[in-house]
Amino acid sequence: MPLPRAPIALPKSYNDLPFTQIKTEHASADPSIIILTLYRPKAYNAFTNTMMLELEEAYGMFDVDDRVKCIIVTGTGKIFCAGADLVDGFKGGLEPVNEHRDGGGRVTLAIHHCRKPTIGALQGSAVGIGITMTLPMNIRIALSTAKIGFVFARRGLVMEACSSYFLPRLIGHSRAMTAITTGSTYLAKDEVWSGLFAHTVDRAEDVLPKAIEVALDVVRNTSAVATYLMKELMYRDTGSAEGTHLLDSRILYELFQSADNKEGVQSFMQKRPASFTGTMDNTHVSAYPWWVPVDVVGRAKADPAGKSKI
Amino acid sequence: MPLPRAPIALPKSYNDLPFTQIKTEHASADPSIIILTLYRPKAYNAFTNTMMLELEEAYGMFDVDDRVKCIIVTGTGKIFCAGADLVDGFKGGLEPVNEHRDGGGRVTLAIHHCRKPTIGALQGSAVGIGITMTLPMNIRIALSTAKIGFVFARRGLVMEACSSYFLPRLIGHSRAMTAITTGSTYLAKDEVWSGLFAHTVDRAEDVLPKAIEVALDVVRNTSAVATYLMKELMYRDTGSAEGTHLLDSRILYELFQSADNKEGVQSFMQKRPASFTGTMDNTHVSAYPWWVPVDVVGRAKADPAGKSKI
Amino acid sequence: MPLPRAPIALPKSYNDLPFTQIKTEHASADPSIIILTLYRPKAYNAFTNTMMLELEEAYGMFDVDDRVKCIIVTGTGKIFCAGADLVDGFKGGLEPVNEHRDGGGRVTLAIHHCRKPTIGALQGSAVGIGITMTLPMNIRIALSTAKIGFVFARRGLVMEACSSYFLPRLIGHSRAMTAITTGSTYLAKDEVWSGLFAHTVDRAEDVLPKAIEVALDVVRNTSAVATYLMKELMYRDTGSAEGTHLLDSRILYELFQSADNKEGVQSFMQKRPASFTGTMDNTHVSAYPWWVPVDVVGRAKADPAGKSKI
Repeated sequence: MPLPRAPIALPKSYNDLPFTQIKTEHASADPSIIILTLYRPKAYNAFTNTMMLELEEAYGMFDVDDRVKCIIVTGTGKIFCAGADLVDGFKGGLEPVNEHRDGGGRVTLAIHHCRKPTIGALQGSAVGIGITMTLPMNIRIALSTAKIGFVFARRGLVMEACSSYFLPRLIGHSRAMTAITTGSTYLAKDEVWSGLFAHTVDRAEDVLPKAIEVALDVVRNTSAVATYLMKELMYRDTGSAEGTHLLDSRILYELFQSADNKEGVQSFMQKRPASFTGTMDNTHVSAYPWWVPVDVVGRAKADPAGKSKI
Repeated sequence: MPLPRAPIALPKSYNDLPFTQIKTEHASADPSIIILTLYRPKAYNAFTNTMMLELEEAYGMFDVDDRVKCIIVTGTGKIFCAGADLVDGFKGGLEPVNEHRDGGGRVTLAIHHCRKPTIGALQGSAVGIGITMTLPMNIRIALSTAKIGFVFARRGLVMEACSSYFLPRLIGHSRAMTAITTGSTYLAKDEVWSGLFAHTVDRAEDVLPKAIEVALDVVRNTSAVATYLMKELMYRDTGSAEGTHLLDSRILYELFQSADNKEGVQSFMQKRPASFTGTMDNTHVSAYPWWVPVDVVGRAKADPAGKSKI
Repeated sequence: MPLPRAPIALPKSYNDLPFTQIKTEHASADPSIIILTLYRPKAYNAFTNTMMLELEEAYGMFDVDDRVKCIIVTGTGKIFCAGADLVDGFKGGLEPVNEHRDGGGRVTLAIHHCRKPTIGALQGSAVGIGITMTLPMNIRIALSTAKIGFVFARRGLVMEACSSYFLPRLIGHSRAMTAITTGSTYLAKDEVWSGLFAHTVDRAEDVLPKAIEVALDVVRNTSAVATYLMKELMYRDTGSAEGTHLLDSRILYELFQSADNKEGVQSFMQKRPASFTGTMDNTHVSAYPWWVPVDVVGRAKADPAGKSKI
């Protein structure tokens, strides 16, 4: 049984949406790929409450829109994202401490919960929320000389946006601990980030094309249902090999002869691109979800200025 | 107290066993090393239900046979294992969904549960179950140009054989997520697999000799009891440094002055190879097992065509 | 609410303490950096019960002394630490099995529990407890040709000092399993340790200067409270992205406008070094600790010859 998702009105096209700090468009190479651009050209795409709400809204649509197969997130200009806008400042609201929800985490969770894969295309430097928002993405591609920094210790803050959950899982505790202890920025090609970026490229103008190349491979050859379930299998861990065997046995049993499995095998035998039509709504996976969903909305309204969909 | 293991009749030699899709033999350099070869020369060693049962049976013997100190798994011909045989097909049986047991997972668990170390010697490409069956092994060695693929998303299936448990632990979530999202094959030497293979060698004929070299080092110099307990300590995690301290303190206390500890210290002081005789049956480790074993057998018979020993 | 720490008499200076198997001193470049040297020049700094008690005592002071901002641990002579002193032998005491506390683990936990970052400066080889004691450190720097070994399987023992908790988290299960299965030593620059050392340098005399360089960056630019909380966030894992979001939201809310956050933002805006004054005692973090502390002291006295502060 799929997790309930709120009904959302879907746009005719993602090319003309009235966002103010992000832009969305269909990739010309394949309209099922959405390119989302952080768009504050005069402010190094620094993260604001408005940008947070727009990202959350966009991802809410991507999640439920069957036309969307893959999302690429990039930034306008020379910087991917300079971190939290200091004009906005680091601040809590008027809510009690246990009702505050970190804006970076809201975006991270929106990406993490989306049932379509995201590819980060970091055409320039990313610090703070600029890099932590990319951690739940499936694949990250970066300019090799982009500066990447978990600068929190230099601001007297802790790492946000669930990055203490993601970072050590992604690159191991040793590299993660080095990066957060110095709080320095390191080039994307630095050994400290080994594994974080699937590809580093040497020219900024090659980052987005590389991301589109990978996205085309994904949308033409893979089942979104399969990838989403595998992501959850890896993150919603049973804690033992045996428990995972019991779980994946059950899921596999139901996926055998599903539309996507049939198409996957037939396209492979016929040596042609596949055309997958499966969604979490039209595919029967009785074990799903196998974890107890955590309600991240506060007891009262999560953000008086915004809205939380999660 | 050791986990109970089913009594199994052991062969006089592993050289003449009547398996049909695998072969076993004692290494000529040291008979305590068993070389197990996936053997379907006309079918790229594709995985079948028969191969699954034979691997499970062989590993059941290795586990309890004190003469066996290390296992090497390799394949015949140019391919290590081409994945599940599509003639067999991806299919569930007639059992209810919650009683189905994935055949890949049964093999993976047989290897994972064996109390002797296994070295994978991938002399050629490995996709699907071909690579996932190697994940519980202690050490993997591969031909540098072998193609390695978690191709599940391209078949509309999820990763099997508990590989969602093993893969992110082995190489981190970032590389794992890249590999499963594209579903592509990558060469064994590709950066995406960094860490997965202890050695990559450039000629197929050098893979098995390299594995034998490592296996000889293992059987001549290490205690199988020590290695088995360390593997379980790392996988059957207490979840905190403190909990692990309490557990390893207790295990160490009982291993002090065990036969293997005495021999390990004496051989070191005398600068000679060690001769370890410890087994889980003759070594007192009262904390073992420290986890609650998960019963992976179904409510009814796991596989009407086979038998489950786990 | 901070975890209660035992009151400890603090020395006027760390330069003249009456330790016998370690030495401590203030770094000349900055007295808030303490250099701790394993000091048994005639015994390759092999680990003894006395060294264990002295390390535990020193770390108990570092933890609560606001003048101490960073610790560097190095060794005297050509070897960092040759492992447990075999003259002391591997032995339990007279206590019952469930009251024995591994000495290596007591040191590891003292370092792990210290609320100031530690940098390991391995100017030479490190085996057994020599390397496992460095695992809880924030950053490790090593001579590239230092021999590093988890040699436990060769002594008939299991990995100690909670290293089965730390090692797979630090470098992944694949590399960890290779290292413990062979029990061999590998050079610090070997691929099997990829990620374990933030820097490897080619001359022994450059190891400590490099560590001091990193330590100066840390003490001049980062908040110890922030780094300590981030370390705990990564190791005291909530188990899900959502749980981590709830937790880091709460911590961030209280850190906003803390003394260290104000200083961090102001020093950044003014492009000057920061002067952080936060400690866990003067910073309000109501969610701390968010885990249930495990009592690692035995039912009776942990070590009749020593004392446990943890």
